[in-house]
Amino acid sequence: MSFPRRSNTCGELRPENSGEKVVLNGWISTVRDMGGLIFIDLRDRYGITQLVIHPELQPELAARSKELKQEFVIWAKGTARMRENPNQRIPTGLIEILIDEFGILNTAELPPFEISDDIETNEELRLKYRYLDLRRPILQKNFIVRNNVYQVVHSYFADQNFLEIETPVLMKSTPEGARDYLVPSRIHKGKFYALPQSPQLYKQILMMSGFDRYMQIVKCFRDEDLRSDRQPEFTQIDVEMSFVDREDLQTVIEGFFARLWKEQLGVQIQTPFLRMSYHDAMENYGSDKPDLRFEMKIKTISEIADKTEFKVFSDTAEAGGTIALINAKGCGNYSRKQLDELTEFAKKYGAKGLSWIKFVDGQVNSPIAKFLSEENIAYLRSTAEVEEGDLLLIAADAWTRCYTILGALRLEIARRTGIFEKVKNTYSFHWVVDFPMFEYDAEENRYIAMHHPFTSPMDEDLHLLDSAPDKARAKAYDIILNGAEVGGGSIRIHSNDTQQKIFKLLGMSEEETELKFGFLLDALKFGAPPHGGIALGLDRITMMLTGTDNIRDVIAFPKTTSGLSLMDGCPSLVDDKQLNELHINIVKD
Amino acid sequence: MSFPRRSNTCGELRPENSGEKVVLNGWISTVRDMGGLIFIDLRDRYGITQLVIHPELQPELAARSKELKQEFVIWAKGTARMRENPNQRIPTGLIEILIDEFGILNTAELPPFEISDDIETNEELRLKYRYLDLRRPILQKNFIVRNNVYQVVHSYFADQNFLEIETPVLMKSTPEGARDYLVPSRIHKGKFYALPQSPQLYKQILMMSGFDRYMQIVKCFRDEDLRSDRQPEFTQIDVEMSFVDREDLQTVIEGFFARLWKEQLGVQIQTPFLRMSYHDAMENYGSDKPDLRFEMKIKTISEIADKTEFKVFSDTAEAGGTIALINAKGCGNYSRKQLDELTEFAKKYGAKGLSWIKFVDGQVNSPIAKFLSEENIAYLRSTAEVEEGDLLLIAADAWTRCYTILGALRLEIARRTGIFEKVKNTYSFHWVVDFPMFEYDAEENRYIAMHHPFTSPMDEDLHLLDSAPDKARAKAYDIILNGAEVGGGSIRIHSNDTQQKIFKLLGMSEEETELKFGFLLDALKFGAPPHGGIALGLDRITMMLTGTDNIRDVIAFPKTTSGLSLMDGCPSLVDDKQLNELHINIVKD
Repeated sequence: MSFPRRSNTCGELRPENSGEKVVLNGWISTVRDMGGLIFIDLRDRYGITQLVIHPELQPELAARSKELKQEFVIWAKGTARMRENPNQRIPTGLIEILIDEFGILNTAELPPFEISDDIETNEELRLKYRYLDLRRPILQKNFIVRNNVYQVVHSYFADQNFLEIETPVLMKSTPEGARDYLVPSRIHKGKFYALPQSPQLYKQILMMSGFDRYMQIVKCFRDEDLRSDRQPEFTQIDVEMSFVDREDLQTVIEGFFARLWKEQLGVQIQTPFLRMSYHDAMENYGSDKPDLRFEMKIKTISEIADKTEFKVFSDTAEAGGTIALINAKGCGNYSRKQLDELTEFAKKYGAKGLSWIKFVDGQVNSPIAKFLSEENIAYLRSTAEVEEGDLLLIAADAWTRCYTILGALRLEIARRTGIFEKVKNTYSFHWVVDFPMFEYDAEENRYIAMHHPFTSPMDEDLHLLDSAPDKARAKAYDIILNGAEVGGGSIRIHSNDTQQKIFKLLGMSEEETELKFGFLLDALKFGAPPHGGIALGLDRITMMLTGTDNIRDVIAFPKTTSGLSLMDGCPSLVDDKQLNELHINIVKD
Repeated sequence: MSFPRRSNTCGELRPENSGEKVVLNGWISTVRDMGGLIFIDLRDRYGITQLVIHPELQPELAARSKELKQEFVIWAKGTARMRENPNQRIPTGLIEILIDEFGILNTAELPPFEISDDIETNEELRLKYRYLDLRRPILQKNFIVRNNVYQVVHSYFADQNFLEIETPVLMKSTPEGARDYLVPSRIHKGKFYALPQSPQLYKQILMMSGFDRYMQIVKCFRDEDLRSDRQPEFTQIDVEMSFVDREDLQTVIEGFFARLWKEQLGVQIQTPFLRMSYHDAMENYGSDKPDLRFEMKIKTISEIADKTEFKVFSDTAEAGGTIALINAKGCGNYSRKQLDELTEFAKKYGAKGLSWIKFVDGQVNSPIAKFLSEENIAYLRSTAEVEEGDLLLIAADAWTRCYTILGALRLEIARRTGIFEKVKNTYSFHWVVDFPMFEYDAEENRYIAMHHPFTSPMDEDLHLLDSAPDKARAKAYDIILNGAEVGGGSIRIHSNDTQQKIFKLLGMSEEETELKFGFLLDALKFGAPPHGGIALGLDRITMMLTGTDNIRDVIAFPKTTSGLSLMDGCPSLVDDKQLNELHINIVKD
């Protein structure tokens, strides 16, 4: 099909083009027959331009235009002119095209939903007709933002001397934590490739290969039961550097975010970012990814246990637990119902109960008031900086649980009191560092790596690996933006001995170590440089920049939470011939 | 481990840095103890710098340096100074560092092969110790070139208003031609995802979504028995555009290659590239990807059949076949043995035999001389522009086979006569266009798509789809560089009717069509724009730029021809637990 190709896009024409002969190609957004004039809004990725037909002057054109419907693809030739009724809301709103010829490039059936931003169609229908959904201006914009993220990544890291290197998608299965997606080998019967959960080992090997600085925008895969903000395949900005310590890497990454926020949002971000230890993050904010856009710090009041008769407090203290609180400013007027909701909420995080104290009308109102002396109240007032109208929420539990409960309540109170709404367009970046190397997995009765098994212990904690591994801290760092982890990394182990010791601490036999990670241990014998890196979540960063909570709004062809692609219907059945060639059977029920 | 971090890389220091205090980090390339002086060559990605120790002045340093071995990783502090014996071959060869302190960052066992370019280690060993292989300067350079290719792709297509968009890796299996790699679904028992052989349908859907211009550097997968120049996963520069015809797309791609060759090699490429029809490429060069760096055109001499008694010629003509030749300039002195070799070579391409005529010592020497009249000889002399010392090679066969045989002989003669050596550093780009839509697959007794089923027929051939589909030509184009296909694409079908017709011609039932491509046919109903695209082979382009014939030299972690990764040993066995979760069994023998 040959057709007059556009001289301009639908987002390009301005008053200075008035009088020019132009050709546009695009989709019909609306057709309005006003009697005296017919208006057609023509849309493409770049914008919308109004076309006009004069039925009196162009009766034939007007007659033919009757067949035009929404989402038809057309070309139109005509002359740009100033509009009598400008539309100030769009950049092309001052002009229109008086057309003298048009042709239909393709027709369109009536779409199952309207191509506009404010639709209330259910997401399933939108995903089935993803090509129509993606025509909506808001999604078009999201993918333009995502494209801009790629461009900043490409140019920033190239400027910093990073080499873009591709690592394999068909790799070895070494599941550690999450499940691998597997790919049966046809040539090697009974053997499998795995899709990467991360190119971790390959990027470390690249450092051992002397590439010095590596980066890659890379798809990663986890076969997990999906939460609403997860996808089976997701995109990482993957970075690794040699001859560095934490600060070097953090500086590079801070520079990246500063440039991205500047270029995309015009926002100047202050660097260096705050560094906060995991311990402080927990004790002050009850989270390893605290949202620092607002205060509402947790206060630890464990010492009160000695000075009150309240059994919950004294029992907790006796068991070595922690008592702490947050001050929900201005929530002193919460009803019994609201307080019950908060208690239920706390229970989801493992709380057995929740103590509260209201300070209203000059009174102290609390179910535990009778256990609290004047001195106790004075202590609480000063520790929590209580003002009239405040509500204290107190948790007493084991260290981690106590702070986790209060961290969750802190966010819940922020949600309820409109704090999130207030801080909406602000950005708070910071690092959480000094994570423990291990957490104890009571179920598996062994240590598991808090970051991953290739993370270096802190130099000053190396000796603890033998005596008290649970006390050893890691050279790991997470980067937090507005309470979400947008990336995490570490300085890696580059010594064969240390790596072997860590595998042993994780309960891996020598045989298992050799089978899974023998090549890494080998590589560590031949001159591995000190190195470290990070992986940033590109999907989440794009969500932050576009202001969406829905990860499916920033992935062109996303899967549902059960891993379905509703547009093309995958996963799907395959031919027996295909399975035979792969030497596999479906298990019968 | 904390250590003095480099002030400079090993490729950075120049005479003007003389006198500066510097710190370097890197790998020991060589240690030479010359008695009076100890020289250490320190290497990193950026270059090599010479370190010096004066044993007399620095006895302790000299003693400690005895433990330094090849591939140890060290830091060294010292003062840059001019060398007494400069090395003019490297940019850092005029200076050296008189070191006053060093430390070992990591030791290294003796590598199984030397880290240098001129090694004769077998490739298996190199692949097993890939991290050592990759330290060789020539491979370091290859990946720097590959990185440059990425950078040019990113910036060129961004400048041209393309959006980088990611398509899924877990997609639907619709094998057409090559085998899919399959990924069993855990959640949906008995169902499978496939890894993309190409994001073809997704990029077309993106055009239907209004994104106008799409590009992506994307991994693709084919589960084929690998030839030495293929890999199970390979990288495409994937491009699609709306509202274009062939010329528009070709112009964009020519601009890309011109920029890449300019930036990487400093070579100015002439655009636009030559366009040659498939028919002409076959009849003149016996190939759909002719190497135009040299002439040696095929001449068709079918008309000779009427004028000679030679039965092979007349039988061929009678069967509707073709008789054609090439002139192997200066090969008139070929021995019987060499001519036999050429005949054997021709037989690999399906020839039943090969006729030859030598023009030497003023004589005509040929086994078929007795069938050739004076007039025949004169005709051959003038058609083939014969000079003294030439050798004519004549094939008589069906059209495709006749030209294919001569095309292969043309390359073989170029190889034997040193033509390839002569044209080594020249670059000849051109397009082959006007491919047939279909080829007939005698085995499957049906038409198959020569390009793929989504390729648009030429407008003027649309009517042939009903009457003579084998005569219909496609809006397809391949881009050829020095006789290799570096990319291929087409204008796509954007009409639902035409697409249905093509599926039918390919022998697909309506049910099969619906099952595999229903979503595409649906999408074509809702206003699909005219569109087309191309996929360029990034691996091959990088091979061309680096001058290697071995695809494994431009892929960081390649697989062997049987799909093995020798470094990490994948594919590998997996736990029964993993298979159980995926509801699959290995078939027993």
